[in-house]
Amino acid sequence: MTFSSDMVPAFVLVRPQLAENVGTAARAMMNCGIFDMRLVDPDEDHLCDRAVAASSGAGDILRQAKVFKNIDDAVADLQKVYATTGRPRDMIKPVFTGQGMAKEICAYQQNGVKCGVLFGPERTGLENDDLAYADTIVNIPLNPNHSSLNLAQAVLLVGYEIFRLSDTTPDMMLSMPHTEPANKAETEHLFAHLEQELERAGYFKSAEKHPRMMRNLRNIFMRADLTSQDVRTLHGMIADLARH
Amino acid sequence: MTFSSDMVPAFVLVRPQLAENVGTAARAMMNCGIFDMRLVDPDEDHLCDRAVAASSGAGDILRQAKVFKNIDDAVADLQKVYATTGRPRDMIKPVFTGQGMAKEICAYQQNGVKCGVLFGPERTGLENDDLAYADTIVNIPLNPNHSSLNLAQAVLLVGYEIFRLSDTTPDMMLSMPHTEPANKAETEHLFAHLEQELERAGYFKSAEKHPRMMRNLRNIFMRADLTSQDVRTLHGMIADLARH
Repeated sequence: MTFSSDMVPAFVLVRPQLAENVGTAARAMMNCGIFDMRLVDPDEDHLCDRAVAASSGAGDILRQAKVFKNIDDAVADLQKVYATTGRPRDMIKPVFTGQGMAKEICAYQQNGVKCGVLFGPERTGLENDDLAYADTIVNIPLNPNHSSLNLAQAVLLVGYEIFRLSDTTPDMMLSMPHTEPANKAETEHLFAHLEQELERAGYFKSAEKHPRMMRNLRNIFMRADLTSQDVRTLHGMIADLARH
Repeated sequence: MTFSSDMVPAFVLVRPQLAENVGTAARAMMNCGIFDMRLVDPDEDHLCDRAVAASSGAGDILRQAKVFKNIDDAVADLQKVYATTGRPRDMIKPVFTGQGMAKEICAYQQNGVKCGVLFGPERTGLENDDLAYADTIVNIPLNPNHSSLNLAQAVLLVGYEIFRLSDTTPDMMLSMPHTEPANKAETEHLFAHLEQELERAGYFKSAEKHPRMMRNLRNIFMRADLTSQDVRTLHGMIADLARH
């Protein structure tokens, strides 16, 4: 599954201070396939050279970003709003982890509900008045002794949780250009070759020890996740060692 | 579950170019509770003012970081080494996602196996010669059209996946200072009060419509996740509205 563009939430940067940080936030959004950037009353021009340079190829997000005077206008078309904050607040709202938020946003957007996430200014984060626009608080669990993130890092983690939910990459992929895992016939043939040459070389001290010694060697090669090419390489190695 | 310090992997920055980036990488490690930083042949002094300022409170990680001339020495005590790269390589190694890596590292370290993760220089990433020191490649799935991360962002995502696995924060936490969710007796009592006053005010047009109209109102308040305090607030509101 991949998100279509209307399944992806808007990211609303509230009163960002430095243009560079808006640029690096745009880069982080691009990394996560999130394109709808909204800026509320930014201190600096988000299209200045410093911002574009910091965006490192994500200039399109900056150019398409919409600027608003206040949060009301920035979130007017949104139906569910999440607010990121690292500080606990004295208010009654559900507090979601990044993963909890991503699951809910994904479910809402699959139901056609348009979502957005608010990020606060670098120095102070969101104020209580800003949080009043949010249905839900998002607080990403991190080292409790040092959980403060810069703006782009916060954007990256929130975006990553959302991207991650839609990503179907298997936990492990085999990178095996021009070959593939050896099948059991190939590995058995290799072990037979190895055993025959070792027998000839007098490696197995006694008939009694032979099975255990061979089992140990098999286990070493079994753990190596041999490819068909590896099996051919080892046949060659054994043949050459045996010849001398 | 929380990681003890020997359950946390080492992060090895290979030939980092800018001291600031080493500083922001230290901050990201601190965010994720990862303290063992190792530097291989850095271009700049990792204890210079720019690095310490960029670390934003994670100066301890910089001060405790060990500097090595080459990768061999930096990974000598490690038993499993992961290498982060955004570029596909023509080599036969398993490629893990961030989550796949985190699960494996967690399992290894719970078995007492010491792990480490290599991160490449800002401009080029890890070279093939560097990757040769790794058991496993890590490639974090991101927008395929724009997957390149800066050093600190890569450190943050890898660290976050590891932290995340050990974190037990529930997806949603109730932030309800000085109160708690209303129980059903409280809400039923509220609905009875509301129904009584609405009846008196002539809100229910007919006996036939009464049950449906009351059900609609109940559903609105049920969705509001009322607290005990909310119930008291609404009793007051209803009483005052009814009085006029």
